[in-house]
Amino acid sequence: MLDELRARVLEANLEIVRRGLVLYTFGNASGIDRTTGMVAIKPSGVPYEAMTAADMVVSDLHGRIIEGDLKPSSDLATHLELYRAFPSIGGVVHTHSEFATAWAQAKREIPPFGTTHADYFYGPVPVTEELSAEEIQGDYVLNTGKAIVRRFRNLDPDAVPGVLVAGHAPFAWGRDPMDAAYHGFVLEAVARMAYYTATLNAEGGGVSQALLDRHYFRKHGAKATYGQGGGKN
Amino acid sequence: MLDELRARVLEANLEIVRRGLVLYTFGNASGIDRTTGMVAIKPSGVPYEAMTAADMVVSDLHGRIIEGDLKPSSDLATHLELYRAFPSIGGVVHTHSEFATAWAQAKREIPPFGTTHADYFYGPVPVTEELSAEEIQGDYVLNTGKAIVRRFRNLDPDAVPGVLVAGHAPFAWGRDPMDAAYHGFVLEAVARMAYYTATLNAEGGGVSQALLDRHYFRKHGAKATYGQGGGKN
Amino acid sequence: MLDELRARVLEANLEIVRRGLVLYTFGNASGIDRTTGMVAIKPSGVPYEAMTAADMVVSDLHGRIIEGDLKPSSDLATHLELYRAFPSIGGVVHTHSEFATAWAQAKREIPPFGTTHADYFYGPVPVTEELSAEEIQGDYVLNTGKAIVRRFRNLDPDAVPGVLVAGHAPFAWGRDPMDAAYHGFVLEAVARMAYYTATLNAEGGGVSQALLDRHYFRKHGAKATYGQGGGKN
Amino acid sequence: MLDELRARVLEANLEIVRRGLVLYTFGNASGIDRTTGMVAIKPSGVPYEAMTAADMVVSDLHGRIIEGDLKPSSDLATHLELYRAFPSIGGVVHTHSEFATAWAQAKREIPPFGTTHADYFYGPVPVTEELSAEEIQGDYVLNTGKAIVRRFRNLDPDAVPGVLVAGHAPFAWGRDPMDAAYHGFVLEAVARMAYYTATLNAEGGGVSQALLDRHYFRKHGAKATYGQGGGKN
Repeated sequence: MLDELRARVLEANLEIVRRGLVLYTFGNASGIDRTTGMVAIKPSGVPYEAMTAADMVVSDLHGRIIEGDLKPSSDLATHLELYRAFPSIGGVVHTHSEFATAWAQAKREIPPFGTTHADYFYGPVPVTEELSAEEIQGDYVLNTGKAIVRRFRNLDPDAVPGVLVAGHAPFAWGRDPMDAAYHGFVLEAVARMAYYTATLNAEGGGVSQALLDRHYFRKHGAKATYGQGGGKN
Repeated sequence: MLDELRARVLEANLEIVRRGLVLYTFGNASGIDRTTGMVAIKPSGVPYEAMTAADMVVSDLHGRIIEGDLKPSSDLATHLELYRAFPSIGGVVHTHSEFATAWAQAKREIPPFGTTHADYFYGPVPVTEELSAEEIQGDYVLNTGKAIVRRFRNLDPDAVPGVLVAGHAPFAWGRDPMDAAYHGFVLEAVARMAYYTATLNAEGGGVSQALLDRHYFRKHGAKATYGQGGGKN
Repeated sequence: MLDELRARVLEANLEIVRRGLVLYTFGNASGIDRTTGMVAIKPSGVPYEAMTAADMVVSDLHGRIIEGDLKPSSDLATHLELYRAFPSIGGVVHTHSEFATAWAQAKREIPPFGTTHADYFYGPVPVTEELSAEEIQGDYVLNTGKAIVRRFRNLDPDAVPGVLVAGHAPFAWGRDPMDAAYHGFVLEAVARMAYYTATLNAEGGGVSQALLDRHYFRKHGAKATYGQGGGKN
Repeated sequence: MLDELRARVLEANLEIVRRGLVLYTFGNASGIDRTTGMVAIKPSGVPYEAMTAADMVVSDLHGRIIEGDLKPSSDLATHLELYRAFPSIGGVVHTHSEFATAWAQAKREIPPFGTTHADYFYGPVPVTEELSAEEIQGDYVLNTGKAIVRRFRNLDPDAVPGVLVAGHAPFAWGRDPMDAAYHGFVLEAVARMAYYTATLNAEGGGVSQALLDRHYFRKHGAKATYGQGGGKN
């Protein structure tokens, strides 16, 4: 079973590279097996070309390394905080994809300018508060996760499967590692179009609540009508 | 004959992917056989890589499925409204191509800034009004088509083969499915150059009426002089 | 000899496609044999993939077709005007490359913001005046050439091997067809960086006259020191 | 030993082309063997496709050519000045990569907007002063190097491995030629995201000193925790 998890996590890591979200080793994907509570994540600083499923590092939800000879991604503690706080998610990706990172660096949330956004994010893509000097000097990676979780106090992580960490870059998640990678890619596409929109029309456009509802709920939830199976996608 | 229609519709769907107008399954192309009134369209949510001509769904102009085991694209009712209102067109494409979508999201028409535009669009690329909450909560996909048709009350769809749906994305059309895909691509190229133009020169430039006439009519209509045959292209 | 000219003109037409300056058939390259005064140019509206050297159309400097079964590019009269007015040039290209076209559409000359520009263009890349309605309704393609030539009344076409036609797109030239294609490509690269520069710093930067002189003259003229041969490149 | 240096310098020159930092021959990479003080650099104006290790030109730190039949890159004197002033560096690259060049042309330093920047550059990427007419008319290439060195009077070249030459383009360096190429690539990625950030939020964002410290020092110096070896990367 962990073999399958490692294989899926490897696949999600390769997907974020193939989709152009990651340069060199600037990114990572993980997945969780909810039955055992085991998390698999990319090792730190290993080139993607050479990576195999066996290189994925397995830890428990408290960061104890269970399997693997390599050091885990330096962002592991952020991923674990998300898995602990958001019980419905099964995969997390972190990238420095360029337009989502630009919004994160500009410390602006991405407004729902159109239906591409509304198809995947039920409301703005939020930006966290900046971490304090204490949070940065302390357990920084864990505190990054806590800042995300705080930002979602009144948000549903299933309805908004991504976030911008202020001054840093995006995280995205999903029901499994590949779904997280998919949301990471959609977030970048939405961020890119939102950049062009915002610079064309400084007052912004923005969809109406009715349009946001219509698009989001035709792809998600019990009444979804999109795709062949009636479910997501 | 429907086999040929399905093959052409498949080809137009693949073309919009090859030309980079579509990510994942965010787009669709259709075609109509005017003799029988049959419309073929891409199925909903099926990956492009696996799609065959036999997967195309055939419906009549009222949306009754005539052939095909899969659900049609969720945008079918918009396509049908365009075929009913614009009797000269033979193909329709819908994409979320990034610059055309940005203009749609900014709710700005694309001004005719230059001759590339004037070669294909005789005037601005218009943007629809926003749909009301009632229109969105009602028969939304059909109402999207109606908003386009309303916007064209005083416009010639042959002279302006595309539109921006406010807060959504572009539709383009043509004499057959591949011509519609071609216009979808030209619209994106025009939107991209118009974005750079508008951000360089906020007052905009804009071609004169004389230049618009000259460029449009050298490619279209009885006196066209462009290409080897004297006709379009 | 005309065989060689046709082959070189074909090669320059393929080069502007390979370098991404041209979409579909939106562009053309030509060359002149100064001994005989014969000009070869791309035929109108023929797909690049299928084009052979034999398809190039040969005309004299007055536009009389000497060889070739196809119609010449609809821009032939502009090319011929440039060959008549600028006796030192041997090739001309016309593209709708996106950033150079954006500056042309914005009706702004491209300032010499840096040494990449100064290496190839000794001063701003100029923009023509807009054509009058009479010029457009009259012999439009020829009048486009005349507008360029008027703009160069006090400019040296060897020191500034390109121009922006207002509301239209760029033309570039060189000592032979491939050199013209090269200048068309450099013009696009310079236009792209100038776009980013101008939007970062509205007052613009701009090189000093001393830097413009230094860079331009180390690649051009009798004292050139760049490359292995001391000459251009 | 010089064979190995030449091979590494060739590889770094090819890397900056593969990574899209260089068009035609607009760029160069060099490396130094600190034991012998020998520097190998790309020859001037030779196409990258045809280049071999044997074509690399070897000079001493004073610019005397020791080996090689070709003329060295016209920027050699800048590289040598950097090797003389920054004894810890082992490789230098110069490119006209488009976003870094745009910042250089706009004469704006690149602020540390986020952690991607902070991972590699401990503070803004600085921009030199403009060279005076005397410096340009005199030993221009050497004076370019001197302007960089002057700009670093109070900066640590190991902590800020790159610079923007005003009105020109970037230089980057590293512990060896490939590391310099890597920093040239990261600089372009950082410049691109900073461009989007600055145009989204004119007041800019900017990381806190605490975040800058955290990110920089987790990849660099004695306490680095990133990667498998504890060292850089």
